[in-house]
Amino acid sequence: MRRFIIGCFGAIVGCLALSFTSPATADEGMWLLTSPPLETLRSKYGFEPSAAWMEKMQKSAVRFSTGGSGSLVSANGLVMTNHHVASDMLSKLSDQDRDILRDGFMAASEADELACPDLELNVLWTIEDVTDRVNSGTEGMSASDAGAARRRAISAIEQEAGERSGLLCQVVTLYQGARYHLYAYKRFTDVRLVFAPEEGIAFFGGDTDNFEYPRYCLDVAFFRIYEDGKPYKPEHYLAWSRDGIAEDELGLVFGHPGTTRRLFTVDHLKFMRDVQLPRRLAQLWRREVQLTNFSNRSPEHRRIAREDFLGVQNSRKALAGQFDGLLDPAVMNEKARSEAALRSWVLQDPDRTEAWGSAWDDIAEAQKRHAGFFNDRSMDLSSSTLFRTALHLVRMSDELPKPSGDRLREYRDSGLESLRFQLFSPAPIHELLEIDILRSGLAQMAETLGGDHPVVQLALAGKSPRARAEELVSGTSLLAVEARQRLASGGSEAIATSTDPMIRLAAALDPALRRYRTRFENEVESVERQAYAKIAAAKFAFQGDSVYPDATFTLRMSFGPVKSYIEAGERIPAFTRLSGTFDRASTRAGDPAFKLPQRWIDAEKRIKGDVPFNFVMCADIIGGNSGSPVVNTTGEVVGLIFDGNLQSLPWAFAYDEREGRAVSVDSRGMMESFKSVYKADRLVNELLGGAK
Amino acid sequence: MRRFIIGCFGAIVGCLALSFTSPATADEGMWLLTSPPLETLRSKYGFEPSAAWMEKMQKSAVRFSTGGSGSLVSANGLVMTNHHVASDMLSKLSDQDRDILRDGFMAASEADELACPDLELNVLWTIEDVTDRVNSGTEGMSASDAGAARRRAISAIEQEAGERSGLLCQVVTLYQGARYHLYAYKRFTDVRLVFAPEEGIAFFGGDTDNFEYPRYCLDVAFFRIYEDGKPYKPEHYLAWSRDGIAEDELGLVFGHPGTTRRLFTVDHLKFMRDVQLPRRLAQLWRREVQLTNFSNRSPEHRRIAREDFLGVQNSRKALAGQFDGLLDPAVMNEKARSEAALRSWVLQDPDRTEAWGSAWDDIAEAQKRHAGFFNDRSMDLSSSTLFRTALHLVRMSDELPKPSGDRLREYRDSGLESLRFQLFSPAPIHELLEIDILRSGLAQMAETLGGDHPVVQLALAGKSPRARAEELVSGTSLLAVEARQRLASGGSEAIATSTDPMIRLAAALDPALRRYRTRFENEVESVERQAYAKIAAAKFAFQGDSVYPDATFTLRMSFGPVKSYIEAGERIPAFTRLSGTFDRASTRAGDPAFKLPQRWIDAEKRIKGDVPFNFVMCADIIGGNSGSPVVNTTGEVVGLIFDGNLQSLPWAFAYDEREGRAVSVDSRGMMESFKSVYKADRLVNELLGGAK
Repeated sequence: MRRFIIGCFGAIVGCLALSFTSPATADEGMWLLTSPPLETLRSKYGFEPSAAWMEKMQKSAVRFSTGGSGSLVSANGLVMTNHHVASDMLSKLSDQDRDILRDGFMAASEADELACPDLELNVLWTIEDVTDRVNSGTEGMSASDAGAARRRAISAIEQEAGERSGLLCQVVTLYQGARYHLYAYKRFTDVRLVFAPEEGIAFFGGDTDNFEYPRYCLDVAFFRIYEDGKPYKPEHYLAWSRDGIAEDELGLVFGHPGTTRRLFTVDHLKFMRDVQLPRRLAQLWRREVQLTNFSNRSPEHRRIAREDFLGVQNSRKALAGQFDGLLDPAVMNEKARSEAALRSWVLQDPDRTEAWGSAWDDIAEAQKRHAGFFNDRSMDLSSSTLFRTALHLVRMSDELPKPSGDRLREYRDSGLESLRFQLFSPAPIHELLEIDILRSGLAQMAETLGGDHPVVQLALAGKSPRARAEELVSGTSLLAVEARQRLASGGSEAIATSTDPMIRLAAALDPALRRYRTRFENEVESVERQAYAKIAAAKFAFQGDSVYPDATFTLRMSFGPVKSYIEAGERIPAFTRLSGTFDRASTRAGDPAFKLPQRWIDAEKRIKGDVPFNFVMCADIIGGNSGSPVVNTTGEVVGLIFDGNLQSLPWAFAYDEREGRAVSVDSRGMMESFKSVYKADRLVNELLGGAK
Repeated sequence: MRRFIIGCFGAIVGCLALSFTSPATADEGMWLLTSPPLETLRSKYGFEPSAAWMEKMQKSAVRFSTGGSGSLVSANGLVMTNHHVASDMLSKLSDQDRDILRDGFMAASEADELACPDLELNVLWTIEDVTDRVNSGTEGMSASDAGAARRRAISAIEQEAGERSGLLCQVVTLYQGARYHLYAYKRFTDVRLVFAPEEGIAFFGGDTDNFEYPRYCLDVAFFRIYEDGKPYKPEHYLAWSRDGIAEDELGLVFGHPGTTRRLFTVDHLKFMRDVQLPRRLAQLWRREVQLTNFSNRSPEHRRIAREDFLGVQNSRKALAGQFDGLLDPAVMNEKARSEAALRSWVLQDPDRTEAWGSAWDDIAEAQKRHAGFFNDRSMDLSSSTLFRTALHLVRMSDELPKPSGDRLREYRDSGLESLRFQLFSPAPIHELLEIDILRSGLAQMAETLGGDHPVVQLALAGKSPRARAEELVSGTSLLAVEARQRLASGGSEAIATSTDPMIRLAAALDPALRRYRTRFENEVESVERQAYAKIAAAKFAFQGDSVYPDATFTLRMSFGPVKSYIEAGERIPAFTRLSGTFDRASTRAGDPAFKLPQRWIDAEKRIKGDVPFNFVMCADIIGGNSGSPVVNTTGEVVGLIFDGNLQSLPWAFAYDEREGRAVSVDSRGMMESFKSVYKADRLVNELLGGAK
């Protein structure tokens, strides 16, 4: 499985949109549901989705706060996603005596479904273009003043819409600032676990097979949404396809791709290649080794570190693949070529030159400035839950007294409810793991910034990383939810007088963290926004406006046929079959990553081996799409996106379907294993209960 | 086991000597055999070694070209060392059908002993002080001119002595330039493997227990030296102690510590902390992850990568420990305190100020300069055997026509025979592993220097790291020994006309590599030499000359008693026992690192469980000491150094025996396992054959 979730890309900021290849030639694009590529679908596939069809897809799609996608698949609020999107919850629902992440879970009845401590699901309800209102009055302002004005306008729009509708309202920046859309979501926080298979089959092949194909993974899990203590009865949900999808048949994917960088300028890509990715990779190489060591100490260490370990390993593989892509001159040369073509067209005309000509150099300048303080910005300790919690509490005490529009964006009224839901979560925090995370983070700060850097000195407080980490974790009260609530409700006085060492550390580091954030927003982000808006405008003018924006972890539609491909001269078939799972397990006998769960070994004879298990298709996806349903033109579930192959990793910068493919679990393979391996009658009946 | 070999520290250059604590208060010191701490030994332990005793120890000690230590232990040229010092050979002697590194080896007779492809052993024969001759005529010269003059003088001394004696002659720089000694070695290249246990017991506990204590490792291997096809009959060798060593009894260690940095100035240590170690660690984190991935592809991948993997993992753990030590303010504050004391004493007197006062600032300046091109210097691909070979061939074609004294030091006549021995070794080179090493090395060059750096562009030649690595390895002829010999004998014309892509790559990179090397030698090393010689002189004057030089991978004596210690309030016993091995294996059942070899499981009932297996002592050791014998005052082998505990890692900078300990295999535990587990009668009889 590709742990194809947004968390992978957490440390990478920025974005922007528009494709550089012409989408008409390939099944490219992460399309807004407000402007689907109707002409392409009609001419190439003879498919003309109705408005009602599109609405049903929109309202069946689910966004996971753990960074992935999902879909409503029953009249009783059943939600399907990937095991690896669920894994954060599976880990939080586990303890020393019951390892749900490893061993799976199946609720025998509704009463047995397990309430999740801090899982929030969102369903997109309405979309409104608010571009004019966001930009209103910013003409003639400096980049950073305009940025501040837009942030205030966005906050006001969100707050007003939220009060009016009672929905979660978020303004989404599209085309890096060329458009602003207001998305209103239904928000669900009573979510319960219904079914998860064992990690051994969900992530069969482990890191070795991650981002590879052929694959044999049952990377699925089911939750149920509750409202007022009862299963949610959605107006829209997806029916299950008994027949699945055929080779060359069109599939459509509705999900939440996280981040792409397809219109980054060449200089911006070089900043990624030379500064951002190497730094992020260095953090990941280090963290993977340290988590391996931690896990080796005992089975219990392994259990509590498992979710972090899988996330780090996955990010490392994804980003290393992206980095390889950026080092491939073919990719960079094509970027340079298309950029030169657009720039030269702009320069052919004085008006165009006046309007857009400076954008590329502005971005290059911003990258140079960013490189000057990039390391300083990456100094935080936010992989520690305790530090992250402390920093939120410290900042809330500063920010909440301000008007919503003047706050740091994550403390605006529109997001506060979700933030508090996370902050006061009763999910377990593992002290041993926290110590390891902090020790590693502190040592890494020192490696990056040097031992004499004032922030490092502040963070270490005259101790070694190990001693300091132990002191912070053993001394903090933040493990207890009530302590967090007390500090939050006590406001700035409670924070100022707190002797909690983690609070004191967060308070000590916050000024520096804010300083670099402000520098980034003013000197980099604002400049990029203005400049990319110009490039987008030039691009619209140059090649028409039938383009899709870069991914923003909001709902998009992708599409394409199920299709085999040729790799190193060999044809890789579109489908794998359930029987192949057992073949691969026996070829790799002795490797723990390929050890099948006992239930599967016992069920081998019962399983229909020729049932399709996983398949590949052309569909433009990226991290965040994990858990997206694949539907046929009837709108039935035929598959479940869980990965892209290695060749799809450079899609972060440019779509290419020669060998790149999206990888799904087949609806038929799922159903066969639910029946033959798990005897999950309740689940099977609910899924096959028929479409509404 | 601590893979306590010099290879660990490969990428770290520089050195210098002298301790900053007073050796009299602790069992500190890596003493030259020409000036042992007789007074301490006499007063503290009542031991007065005779000149004959010292000579016997000197001529029984063996230096391994694989970066470790050993000792002659029989009248028939049997040499004892660690399994992990032997592991390079064990790997080279293995193939797909016989994995000696993993499964061990026992020769049933002399005829079955396995000839090693490229193992060179050295025994130190004579020592001569040549300081005056090296420095002759350099007064008044600039630092870089003086450096060049000294390099020429050293070459002449080595060549002359070599021709006269027929021995391998090397001038050793001691006290970073305050003294120069000429060491003449007997050189042995027909070395055969006699015995090695399974990796599962030699490295029991794996990375988890590496650098830990208590330990249960049979980290031993035996080779035999041959001369003219017959076992070598040494004049001196060590007898085996049947009774072993007791708690508090004095043990003496004769071995080859690699590198310490105990008189580094504070600024130099900060350079290590902020520049050198972070960079080296970043390489190691990355490499460990990549080798893990490589190994997971198949058992054969695992086998061929095993030796590299163990080396990388060990270095990572060692250097991370050193880095933690440098971040511990207690260590740095003590360094600052003692440095300030010495500097203030120097400044109290105008003559002293004139002679030595500038040294500290000169070193600080050199570090600043070095930081400016340190990353450029670390750009080479020398972990690839094929690239290393190509670079040697290219450079030999340039260097050999010059007079010996004008060559790069590794091509001087005195070292050529050893170099050719390595270069034309028939040891297997694994193409798959070479591709992985080069791919990783090329990507890392790009991560470090940026994709547009001219050297990166040269190295990648317009391809991605993966494609370039495959092209280099599939196109090179250097896998064949004859091709290497042909290129070496063909000289510069053969190199200039070669179309071998690896040769062309080495030739293309060589100018840049030489440029940075020259900058380092002239702007950093020469300055450091002069300045550290001044600091050494000041230190001699300040606290007397009873000091030992920093480690230089030359023969030293360390000593101290067997001693338990207290860690986190708990007493850690000095000895472990054989029975503890089985206890630990059962506590950690399921973890492959703690899986005992079948032979041990079968032998459990036969083994005398209360026989001591491993022990700790106070003795000042460091990487390179692996395989050193521990002898009692009678000169009998009582143990075999194989590790230091975690608390000993900061010994690179300062000795501290509160918790730091050297870790050995006990002679009694070895003998019991040779008898009861391996039924190795031939080995047992030879070891117990009695001292000469």
